[in-house]
Amino acid sequence: MSDLSVNFAGRMRQLRPSTIREILKVTAQPDIISFAGGLPAPELFPVEAVRAAAESVLVTTGPQALQYGPSEGYMPLREWISAEAGRRGVSAAPTDVLITSGSQQVLDLAAKLFLNPGDVVLTENPTYLAAIQAFQAFEARFVPVPTDDNGLIPDALPELIRRHRPKFLYTIPNFQNPTGITLPAERRAGLARIVAAHGLPVVEDDPYGKLRYRGTDVPPVKHWDEAGCVLYASTFSKTVAPGLRLGWVAAPAEVFSQMLILKQASDLHTSSLDQRVAYTYLIQNDQSAHIERIRSAYGARFAVMDAALQNEMPPGFSWTKPEGGMFLWVTGPAGLDGMALLRKAIEHKVAFVPGRDFFPADGGDNFLRLNFSNSAPDRIREGVRRLAALCREQM
Amino acid sequence: MSDLSVNFAGRMRQLRPSTIREILKVTAQPDIISFAGGLPAPELFPVEAVRAAAESVLVTTGPQALQYGPSEGYMPLREWISAEAGRRGVSAAPTDVLITSGSQQVLDLAAKLFLNPGDVVLTENPTYLAAIQAFQAFEARFVPVPTDDNGLIPDALPELIRRHRPKFLYTIPNFQNPTGITLPAERRAGLARIVAAHGLPVVEDDPYGKLRYRGTDVPPVKHWDEAGCVLYASTFSKTVAPGLRLGWVAAPAEVFSQMLILKQASDLHTSSLDQRVAYTYLIQNDQSAHIERIRSAYGARFAVMDAALQNEMPPGFSWTKPEGGMFLWVTGPAGLDGMALLRKAIEHKVAFVPGRDFFPADGGDNFLRLNFSNSAPDRIREGVRRLAALCREQM
Repeated sequence: MSDLSVNFAGRMRQLRPSTIREILKVTAQPDIISFAGGLPAPELFPVEAVRAAAESVLVTTGPQALQYGPSEGYMPLREWISAEAGRRGVSAAPTDVLITSGSQQVLDLAAKLFLNPGDVVLTENPTYLAAIQAFQAFEARFVPVPTDDNGLIPDALPELIRRHRPKFLYTIPNFQNPTGITLPAERRAGLARIVAAHGLPVVEDDPYGKLRYRGTDVPPVKHWDEAGCVLYASTFSKTVAPGLRLGWVAAPAEVFSQMLILKQASDLHTSSLDQRVAYTYLIQNDQSAHIERIRSAYGARFAVMDAALQNEMPPGFSWTKPEGGMFLWVTGPAGLDGMALLRKAIEHKVAFVPGRDFFPADGGDNFLRLNFSNSAPDRIREGVRRLAALCREQM
Repeated sequence: MSDLSVNFAGRMRQLRPSTIREILKVTAQPDIISFAGGLPAPELFPVEAVRAAAESVLVTTGPQALQYGPSEGYMPLREWISAEAGRRGVSAAPTDVLITSGSQQVLDLAAKLFLNPGDVVLTENPTYLAAIQAFQAFEARFVPVPTDDNGLIPDALPELIRRHRPKFLYTIPNFQNPTGITLPAERRAGLARIVAAHGLPVVEDDPYGKLRYRGTDVPPVKHWDEAGCVLYASTFSKTVAPGLRLGWVAAPAEVFSQMLILKQASDLHTSSLDQRVAYTYLIQNDQSAHIERIRSAYGARFAVMDAALQNEMPPGFSWTKPEGGMFLWVTGPAGLDGMALLRKAIEHKVAFVPGRDFFPADGGDNFLRLNFSNSAPDRIREGVRRLAALCREQM
């Protein structure tokens, strides 16, 4: 190398790497019991059915499955999604549905479309870590919406909208990441009314809605969205397989056309092969039976973790009891340092995500997010035993 | 619907839809001879070999192929790319290689990383349509670098750099899209020297480099990049299959780490299945034999198109003679209206892309881009016959 050098730092956006992601890399080691990731249980992936679907796609429509495709997505898959949205209480024509590279890309496209540097996004507090990262990449400012044990409080919105002129509200109404909380139906209807009155776009993120193992399904906020404020995003990552990177958004027409231009500029289109494989898998297999298997396994794993926490955790710790999804949220005593606890936990071969990174602003040191979908029941019991022992030491 | 409505227009970026893309949708009809798209020849896709690779991946490593993966990409594929880069004269460790969702995503990530609204990007003029769109999404200003029949003129750069303080230079040195021009070795070396002296980052886009059917390979600009100014991007779209959406960039370490954060925020990672299928395909098959088949077919198609143009086109039209790639570039007489010609051409069931949209600023009305990779020789002859007849009418 010569002594020439480029002053990249002076030219580039300076993005803070996620320290937590760096730490969590070590948790991929097989001897660590990890409650850290947001990974589905791989033993429940429909591997053989996907193999058969891939075989069928490549044998019957090989050249098309390997060729460039439309930026909107593969029409039969958009039609399937339109019907599925209907079953969820969301009215969306196939032409309202944009296929994305995972629902993470919906967050990226929404930020790209709505945000200029310094613009405000309203979010739950805490909220999904990678949504914070997606919006931070466009230099968003975050304003938290007040919440209680039932999620965000719609009546708090008008004042926030007046004061901060947000560009949109981001919410995860079902089994929220990280808290596991579900927003009740009456709050969803109220939320839809209030954002309509104020013309506030909503990005409704629903990755876990199909993973309910207790209680009754609640329709999405989009169900009450007569004004066309809501972009409803979901994914096949939790019901089929995340490795295919297939998400989607049902968006109001005006938003759809602009998002489509941005989708095209971002990556032209989502994998033709993955879209066709997923579609063929969906029509060749009994989806409800498959999702029932996932729900029943995750429900059992939640129950095991809940019982283990009940048995093992010292006083001063409480946690949510989600009715679905993949996470529960532990509140420790004030003064608990979740990051220090994680470092010790890794020494004892157990991992979780400290709460801090889920708070767009400050705070969150005394929270832990625990994933229960990715560990077998015995590992859950052993992991909670180790973690609780460390929590007792902290007291 | 109620009378509520959201003022999306007041909140969103207003992006001009590509009129040309709208027009070109009709060219997908099978009775149209299309020289318009940038599509590889689907009859040359290695469908059976990809099928076998998918089978092998899903049978042997199904759960991993369907699970979330690292944002950097699948390490064995990064290693393969590192070795392939070496064969091209580019020194890049596997850890320098970021896998992207097509090389289009490299353009998106580079823009996201380097550009604030109003920042200047230097480009060839004309340049790749979808690069213009990717950079426009971040409100870039375009400043063209003077070019001649051998591509951009490096000696023109210092003055442009001083005057416009560009954030980066975007260039396609091999068989440029749309012109088909290849930048000679001495200009590449000179370019590397000049950008190093000025600390200017370069995004070098090399989708077609392996598709040379005449002449001798020239190493990428990155080959001469001692200062670490060059982000070298390539893709499997033209050598394996575009539907897999697999691209990559070899970036200086400082850029890599920031691009990785943005990649994660954009779509978490590129399809695990597609990456593993491509890797398995690459190691199970003789790549050079496959690429030789593509080269030989495209070389023959170019020759057919060149000869047909020679026989049919009226005086006043000239065109480039690319030594590889997928496009040639026709210059018509001053006053030719390429867009009007396209409308007539579609009536006569032949299509091309008018030059105008490849010019970030004004001009380009008298140019046509013709793709020769996607049509069989007989269709090329017939399409040129129809097109030339219309050109004669214009005279």
